[in-house]
Amino acid sequence: MSIERKAASVPRGFLFSTAEAAIKKPGRKDLALIYSEQESVMAGMFTLNNVKAAPVKLALKQIKSGKGQAIIVNSGNANACTGVQGMKDALEMSKLVADLKGIRADKVYVCSTGVIGTFMPMERIRSKMSMLVKSLGKATVDDVAVAIMTTDTFPKVVSSRKKIGDKMVTITGMCKGAGMIQPKMATMLSFITTDASIEKSALDTALRQAVNRSFNRITIDGDMSTNDTVLIMANGMAGNEPIRSKSKAYEVFAAALTEHLYELSEMIVRDGEGATKLVEVEVRNARSEKDAEHGAFAVANSLLVKTAIYGNDANWGRLMAALGYSGIALKEEKIDIYLNDLMVAKNGMAAGVDKEANEKLKNKRIKIVIDLHLGKRSAKVLTCDLTEDYIRINAEYRT
Amino acid sequence: MSIERKAASVPRGFLFSTAEAAIKKPGRKDLALIYSEQESVMAGMFTLNNVKAAPVKLALKQIKSGKGQAIIVNSGNANACTGVQGMKDALEMSKLVADLKGIRADKVYVCSTGVIGTFMPMERIRSKMSMLVKSLGKATVDDVAVAIMTTDTFPKVVSSRKKIGDKMVTITGMCKGAGMIQPKMATMLSFITTDASIEKSALDTALRQAVNRSFNRITIDGDMSTNDTVLIMANGMAGNEPIRSKSKAYEVFAAALTEHLYELSEMIVRDGEGATKLVEVEVRNARSEKDAEHGAFAVANSLLVKTAIYGNDANWGRLMAALGYSGIALKEEKIDIYLNDLMVAKNGMAAGVDKEANEKLKNKRIKIVIDLHLGKRSAKVLTCDLTEDYIRINAEYRT
Repeated sequence: MSIERKAASVPRGFLFSTAEAAIKKPGRKDLALIYSEQESVMAGMFTLNNVKAAPVKLALKQIKSGKGQAIIVNSGNANACTGVQGMKDALEMSKLVADLKGIRADKVYVCSTGVIGTFMPMERIRSKMSMLVKSLGKATVDDVAVAIMTTDTFPKVVSSRKKIGDKMVTITGMCKGAGMIQPKMATMLSFITTDASIEKSALDTALRQAVNRSFNRITIDGDMSTNDTVLIMANGMAGNEPIRSKSKAYEVFAAALTEHLYELSEMIVRDGEGATKLVEVEVRNARSEKDAEHGAFAVANSLLVKTAIYGNDANWGRLMAALGYSGIALKEEKIDIYLNDLMVAKNGMAAGVDKEANEKLKNKRIKIVIDLHLGKRSAKVLTCDLTEDYIRINAEYRT
Repeated sequence: MSIERKAASVPRGFLFSTAEAAIKKPGRKDLALIYSEQESVMAGMFTLNNVKAAPVKLALKQIKSGKGQAIIVNSGNANACTGVQGMKDALEMSKLVADLKGIRADKVYVCSTGVIGTFMPMERIRSKMSMLVKSLGKATVDDVAVAIMTTDTFPKVVSSRKKIGDKMVTITGMCKGAGMIQPKMATMLSFITTDASIEKSALDTALRQAVNRSFNRITIDGDMSTNDTVLIMANGMAGNEPIRSKSKAYEVFAAALTEHLYELSEMIVRDGEGATKLVEVEVRNARSEKDAEHGAFAVANSLLVKTAIYGNDANWGRLMAALGYSGIALKEEKIDIYLNDLMVAKNGMAAGVDKEANEKLKNKRIKIVIDLHLGKRSAKVLTCDLTEDYIRINAEYRT
């Protein structure tokens, strides 16, 4: 497999390395380290699944300090449903990095993704650790993005720069995740590095706002994993005046971060397992934003809608059915539906353009707009079509 | 396609007929009439979708009387999202039968299933109506079950007999439905005929109880249709003492009806679109029955679980993840999981029997038991695996 990579620009003071510890199938990188030369302000968001992987349980404790300096990640094993041993292993991974770098273990976050219910191959991980730490600086951020892939078919990196005051601030983020996205950012790991100087509470709020408008608005198959994690590290090395909540600089930073995460989340949907089309579902003029969001998710998660889009079948009746069972406030006779700007249903009934509509669906990018004509609130959700390849990928994942 | 049929026994006084009105693809029966020589006590349950087909809206009004004498059904067109015209058409179908039989139109129920958003081909339906009514008695109940099929691959009929007092009572039911089953008995039509004599309120309660333990506990793909309907007609021609609520006869009848509908609902799951395996998911020892049911549904609806079962991959971690995001009360370290009686997870961790477990999954009938060890309530849900054929069937449904 050849992956096209362009070097992403990287915030000051961040170093990366990767290694191969045979956690995934041999021949693929599966261990990565993200390290900041200076201790960073950190914020995180984690899976809401009641079954949480050991590293997530650990990170939930660590993040309370709002500080950190390194993230060690592995792919191939989720370290979930592994009990007391799983927690020991996560702690050891953290401590191995900390000892080699001479920092405190509670400043080293651990993230894992992969198969559930299998103990970590700690011997192999231990044997690679010293090399991993020594080679910090030798890998690019794209190399890390490759090392954290599971069923992803391409690495996902976004880099952007913004002027904050008189300083140029860089944000570079990466993520992995191709299936199980929704409810709430599932099977998804994302690491955002920035050299911005920002106060803890401001970073926390900015991250929450950005995730709610990006990773929490995408869906592939409706499942939610045990391991989802978004971590942001801000090491302050850009030298800008520290960003405070409610300041103008905060608005600039928060908007940039939201846009940044939206781009990353779009990459995840584009790489949805077996997906051939990117689908944006917008519900307009709902009674509340919650209604708009629920309605859009019901449509985006409907297997019948997703297979119809795959089959170029503008079966808008399935959209109506999904809206109907979503439980949101609606009046059937007020609903208009558009497929890539073509009105396919007017006042809840066929607009009589089936052939043109089927043609529209041959696009690789589908925009569905549902106008409820009931209120003033809207929401957008990103998803993809559902294909035979999704089944193949997930039926054969471990075999 | 050759369909094996054995003649089902039929309650006294019920007559059937079918016709071909080219609503479906030519060459297939798509119109059917169920008629009772005597007016019947009736009860019904209908889709909870906020977008309801015209015939469902009509039936919701009619059923208030608790009386009826005929059901006219078509497949190929759902008469949903068809506005004022759709309601006119449903009313006309009802009136055509009523006039020809000399009964009141509000005693003739209409049911439709098929594509949404297309007006009924009323000309073709009108032209067949006189023949349909005249040929009453010429079709079997199995012929009706064939005429109401859409993506079903076999007709679904169950017949059973019970002694109530000193009289033999017959219950004969049929249903259709292969995809979109859940939440709540979706894309599903079921018609139950019985010659039992029973009071309206008793019939109503018995139907609700039976549906909640059968059709409402099955799931294929999590979608819910605009047309789901279960109707039961009891014409009293068995001559038994009328069954009253809370009597011993009621218990006998209600238990028989529940068993009857459970058999029908199992047929629907067995015929799930593209399904190769029947899967029973039981959650045991939950804190509440609602928790048990929610947990079982989360597992049964998880695409990752369904594809793993298809792929003979005993990936029990996906079950744990689904339980975790279902939101029910659980303690990860207390959960045991069994696949066809083999314990695959103990105390929330691997039992180390992956190979044997994968072998177990090669069965066509899979029984998953999840013991939460938390309370005393249990619930069972029936589902099927998810295969490439599901995608194919639903991507090509209209094309």
